[in-house]
Amino acid sequence: MKTTTWLGLLGIVALIAAAPVAGQMAQRTTPTEISEATLGCIDCHADQTPAIYQEWGGSKHYRANVGCYECHHAEAGDPDAFEHNGYLISIIVSPKDCARCHGKEVAEFEESHHAKAGLILGSLDNFLADVVEGDTSFYGGSALAVSGCKQCHGAVVDVNEDGSLAATGWPNTGMGRVNPDGSIGACTACHQRHAFSAAQARRPENCGKCHLGPDHPQMEIYEESKHGIAYRAHESEMALDRPKWVLGEDYTAAPTCATCHMSAVRTTDGKLVPVTHDVGLRISWNNRPPVSIRPEVSDAKLGLEKMAGVDWRQRRANMVEVCTVCHTTPYVENFYEQYDGVIELYDNKFAKPGVQFMKILSEGGLVTPTQFDEQVEWTWWEIWHHEGRVARHGASMMAPDYTHWHGLYEVAKHWYTDFIPQLREIAEKNLDSPDPDRAAAAKKLQEAIDAHLAQPEHAWYVGKMSDEERAKRKQAQEEFKKRYGN
Amino acid sequence: MKTTTWLGLLGIVALIAAAPVAGQMAQRTTPTEISEATLGCIDCHADQTPAIYQEWGGSKHYRANVGCYECHHAEAGDPDAFEHNGYLISIIVSPKDCARCHGKEVAEFEESHHAKAGLILGSLDNFLADVVEGDTSFYGGSALAVSGCKQCHGAVVDVNEDGSLAATGWPNTGMGRVNPDGSIGACTACHQRHAFSAAQARRPENCGKCHLGPDHPQMEIYEESKHGIAYRAHESEMALDRPKWVLGEDYTAAPTCATCHMSAVRTTDGKLVPVTHDVGLRISWNNRPPVSIRPEVSDAKLGLEKMAGVDWRQRRANMVEVCTVCHTTPYVENFYEQYDGVIELYDNKFAKPGVQFMKILSEGGLVTPTQFDEQVEWTWWEIWHHEGRVARHGASMMAPDYTHWHGLYEVAKHWYTDFIPQLREIAEKNLDSPDPDRAAAAKKLQEAIDAHLAQPEHAWYVGKMSDEERAKRKQAQEEFKKRYGN
Amino acid sequence: MKTTTWLGLLGIVALIAAAPVAGQMAQRTTPTEISEATLGCIDCHADQTPAIYQEWGGSKHYRANVGCYECHHAEAGDPDAFEHNGYLISIIVSPKDCARCHGKEVAEFEESHHAKAGLILGSLDNFLADVVEGDTSFYGGSALAVSGCKQCHGAVVDVNEDGSLAATGWPNTGMGRVNPDGSIGACTACHQRHAFSAAQARRPENCGKCHLGPDHPQMEIYEESKHGIAYRAHESEMALDRPKWVLGEDYTAAPTCATCHMSAVRTTDGKLVPVTHDVGLRISWNNRPPVSIRPEVSDAKLGLEKMAGVDWRQRRANMVEVCTVCHTTPYVENFYEQYDGVIELYDNKFAKPGVQFMKILSEGGLVTPTQFDEQVEWTWWEIWHHEGRVARHGASMMAPDYTHWHGLYEVAKHWYTDFIPQLREIAEKNLDSPDPDRAAAAKKLQEAIDAHLAQPEHAWYVGKMSDEERAKRKQAQEEFKKRYGN
Repeated sequence: MKTTTWLGLLGIVALIAAAPVAGQMAQRTTPTEISEATLGCIDCHADQTPAIYQEWGGSKHYRANVGCYECHHAEAGDPDAFEHNGYLISIIVSPKDCARCHGKEVAEFEESHHAKAGLILGSLDNFLADVVEGDTSFYGGSALAVSGCKQCHGAVVDVNEDGSLAATGWPNTGMGRVNPDGSIGACTACHQRHAFSAAQARRPENCGKCHLGPDHPQMEIYEESKHGIAYRAHESEMALDRPKWVLGEDYTAAPTCATCHMSAVRTTDGKLVPVTHDVGLRISWNNRPPVSIRPEVSDAKLGLEKMAGVDWRQRRANMVEVCTVCHTTPYVENFYEQYDGVIELYDNKFAKPGVQFMKILSEGGLVTPTQFDEQVEWTWWEIWHHEGRVARHGASMMAPDYTHWHGLYEVAKHWYTDFIPQLREIAEKNLDSPDPDRAAAAKKLQEAIDAHLAQPEHAWYVGKMSDEERAKRKQAQEEFKKRYGN
Repeated sequence: MKTTTWLGLLGIVALIAAAPVAGQMAQRTTPTEISEATLGCIDCHADQTPAIYQEWGGSKHYRANVGCYECHHAEAGDPDAFEHNGYLISIIVSPKDCARCHGKEVAEFEESHHAKAGLILGSLDNFLADVVEGDTSFYGGSALAVSGCKQCHGAVVDVNEDGSLAATGWPNTGMGRVNPDGSIGACTACHQRHAFSAAQARRPENCGKCHLGPDHPQMEIYEESKHGIAYRAHESEMALDRPKWVLGEDYTAAPTCATCHMSAVRTTDGKLVPVTHDVGLRISWNNRPPVSIRPEVSDAKLGLEKMAGVDWRQRRANMVEVCTVCHTTPYVENFYEQYDGVIELYDNKFAKPGVQFMKILSEGGLVTPTQFDEQVEWTWWEIWHHEGRVARHGASMMAPDYTHWHGLYEVAKHWYTDFIPQLREIAEKNLDSPDPDRAAAAKKLQEAIDAHLAQPEHAWYVGKMSDEERAKRKQAQEEFKKRYGN
Repeated sequence: MKTTTWLGLLGIVALIAAAPVAGQMAQRTTPTEISEATLGCIDCHADQTPAIYQEWGGSKHYRANVGCYECHHAEAGDPDAFEHNGYLISIIVSPKDCARCHGKEVAEFEESHHAKAGLILGSLDNFLADVVEGDTSFYGGSALAVSGCKQCHGAVVDVNEDGSLAATGWPNTGMGRVNPDGSIGACTACHQRHAFSAAQARRPENCGKCHLGPDHPQMEIYEESKHGIAYRAHESEMALDRPKWVLGEDYTAAPTCATCHMSAVRTTDGKLVPVTHDVGLRISWNNRPPVSIRPEVSDAKLGLEKMAGVDWRQRRANMVEVCTVCHTTPYVENFYEQYDGVIELYDNKFAKPGVQFMKILSEGGLVTPTQFDEQVEWTWWEIWHHEGRVARHGASMMAPDYTHWHGLYEVAKHWYTDFIPQLREIAEKNLDSPDPDRAAAAKKLQEAIDAHLAQPEHAWYVGKMSDEERAKRKQAQEEFKKRYGN
């Protein structure tokens, strides 16, 4: 393993310069009093939707005289605009609407990976939801996709002929929602209506609505980590409801998800890094695919032009600026070595060979073109999509149980007890196939498996551990048994 | 899918009229001072069980002069009554005892599904606990049932010959406990001794003692949902310790389990719906069985006469009264469409065929009469009892990860990779059985599987997706790969 | 089941006498002002590591004038000592350093099971991490072990040639860390830097960094239990930040992990049991191995001389002193009967036969000497190491869902559907082995399985349930179906 050298980049100027912020702020105007239109809304809605009224009353919007109409007013021609007691309004307040005041935040969001959350059509996950789990009985689509995937990834919000919103896309607070006005996103994914509380958005549970579960348990990982433990213990010292919420200035007790990935930081150089709504600026690995890739690579594929130009080293340097508020530089460097080490182990020992095997299967016609109709496809899917991600994310945030038991332990277990035997069986069954292409592919697969298992890290499995290693391990085992009895 | 029409029922008068409450209250008397008997208890117990003394000191009971003796006094002839320093008392304070002051609450409880929680004898769950997992070494029964099932469902509390309580049923705080005095229930299941804090009972963790885990993860589902997120963020605004705790009046920040299912609400019509201890009054699906049923159907079977007469539409209208404090009516209508859509998908695509297949197996003698001695029985059990419930409950409370990954994803995975292949194998093995009934059943099963897989929603699995659909999906997949690289 | 008789031991004098405490305190000296050296550190570090500075400022250390240098100063010759602006310091503050002031706590820790946490070399877990999941690409070892196991169990902290700490062992806060100065342990495992807050260490999340997950979910178990529920509801009454934190005096609302296992208690006899850092003093079962053993047995094997002399009855009596602050003695006695009942059930029905079967396999050459290269080894491993532990720990802390669904349900499921069939297959395959030893072992295995399944508690599985039992169960099942419809 090469020593990482990215710390030389620490001096790089942070991406988010202060100037544009000032620019945006100059363009904002806040009303000096509650508008007549909003007062009209309140006349009924204080009684008819009392919680909305009260939650708004507790929000910053209230004192800024930003009321119902200021956010919900619509333009003639908006697909979801409707006449309501003399006013043209819409139910959905889209990022385009929020951008009237919060232009900088929306612009940052639009440059981010989050803005592409809805682009899951054609993914294996989407095939699962639409076809494997679903049917077409919910307005021609899968009810599961509506209540499942799209609640995080975002639905296309369709407007019925009568102007109401269709149940296929509403209720929906998915991050990549496609709104009737054509804008992308749902600010309410994090800033829950109608309090729009910054304090809430800074809390880990907020991110946990989507970042949890078998395929991306960041929430569970955080909870196990020292960071999560410190947060729970010192919640009252977190100053979560301060408008200015700068790590190192306003609080030091613990970081939340927001702290590390988005929020303002006073660096050890004395620089103020402002909050950003581009969540990828401090991330140096994209652990979504079978084999980890650099975020600038995936951002380019997603058409995120600005972010495609931000190298992982720069992003890591951004994160290190956060880490070093609480930790020393050598500590942080060592942490990144440990993290990279797990990525490298997983990628080399399991992920890359897995990709290779699956390619031989599909290119050689050893599996049907349909996904998930054969056991081996499920096995491989869970190895990389669930367990391999858990291990990598676990290492990224220092949660040992997720790195090991929920992560690489499951990867290895399914590798040796399911994946390899299933691959071998497919190879054996096809070696004598009358179809010469399949027979050739089967032979290729068998050779690939043999070459794979001949690697030193798999030697134990085929009984080829070196005598020296074997003796060393046997002795350790006997000593352990003496100490522990099993 | 038909548009739901239950909203026309919204005007129906809520079931719980205010009058009986006043009636009950008139019958209560609270002591004007701490009784001599209780002062006698305290003389020793302030030292001997200091925490009980202190927790009682923090309770409302203290200031109402309701002390040890007021609750623990027993009648001569009570099976668990015993003489203690000149007083006849019992350890267990049963609902019958609590009803001396809290008659309305106990009466509501007795009309509810909760009161039948102990009726699990004869269930598959019970067979698992007693036989599959258990033995008879714990006083002739299964230690697992005592420390497992019965801690939630309630044990029969037996009294030893010496008047002490038997370990088979004590400690126990299960909801459907059968008390020595013949009464059913354990108020302490939710109102933990000796603080009996309403605030605690209103918190989600309280319900989470039983409503969690692989077969009914309501707690985990709530935590993931927007409701749970809002609760964690705004706990301090929840007014949890107010005696009057009316949604829309005393708090609006978030709902807990209690809020939606039990607690008082000021509706948008200005009506005060009082708290109820009948937990089924706002529930419109019973998702316990393999195929979801309406709650009035299961309540009738359980012998809950009053609730058997409360139609699901009425119950849904009750819930909508809660929802609309915070949400608009079209939003709530759409939500229920989404929820019903998942139920319908699960029921039609998986549950009903599963029930049919299992019936063929058991009626045709293709499995032994003993449950769980064959693999296919475990497979089907987990599909409906664990995963199918998780999906349905996940959709009911808007937790996408539980609806999908922990829910229908697992259902579909086990359906296609375990259940169908296991059924096919059973059919094939028995087609040529010398027993003509078995052979006929095997044929019937094979035909049923074929008919099932010929349905359009299973076409993908048998390679019969339409060319058009296949082409559309292939294109989407290729576009996705360009964007994401896999 | 024999009635437990340990309560006769309740009078035994607690192990931790007050005298040594006083002795230790007399030896401590606290500075009267912040040292010049520490003031020098602060000159830079207030800016360079602002969070460390601020967190220290919130700690008790600050007001006791214990600053950077007091903890970080090193002796010439210490392997990790380095010159830093004229001072000899080290990064790691080891238990040896902490013992300058906290000698009693370190001494107690060193006598405890916790101090041996690092002795995992040679365990099956270690083989998994190093070999099955790992490779040798991280400085000759497994990156997984570094980010996984060792983050809880403790790494050997190696010092690089340039005096910096190697990434193989740093960052690391594992309980059994081997420090450069030769001392064992990491006080920061629980007392997180640089607040070293007692309040934090008393919270359940603190223990949850390691005590969670599939093989030891104590954290999840606690959260489900009445104890955990009470804690969440009454956190504000827990007096967590009081220096004196005595159950029954300073708080009574709920216990945390620390309360029961370590913290001070005023017993019902009026005795003050001081806090101890020996976590095993109140534990009466060691549920780590396949078959539960008494803690004095495992402590002896681990070389914990003092604890080897502390009988489980004495430890249970210690715990009962805690329980009875809130519960009556008969309640606690019954609880322990219930707990012991689950241990006995698991041990006798599953664990002991499992050990016997695996012994036949390995001694008879029916499996290779290599662990985890055969399916049956994984099956048995998860039965005892994961599921069997979960059941036992679940029962120990009264979490029904973990005792049953996550625990014995999984044990039984995998026993009957995986383990027994896999064993049978191995036996059948080897009965006619040309190797007479293997053939004999196969016969022995087959007989052992037959004898095992002939036991009454397994009769149901082989269709030999008594007619009477069968009839009784059938009737119950039919009645249940009437009530519930399935």
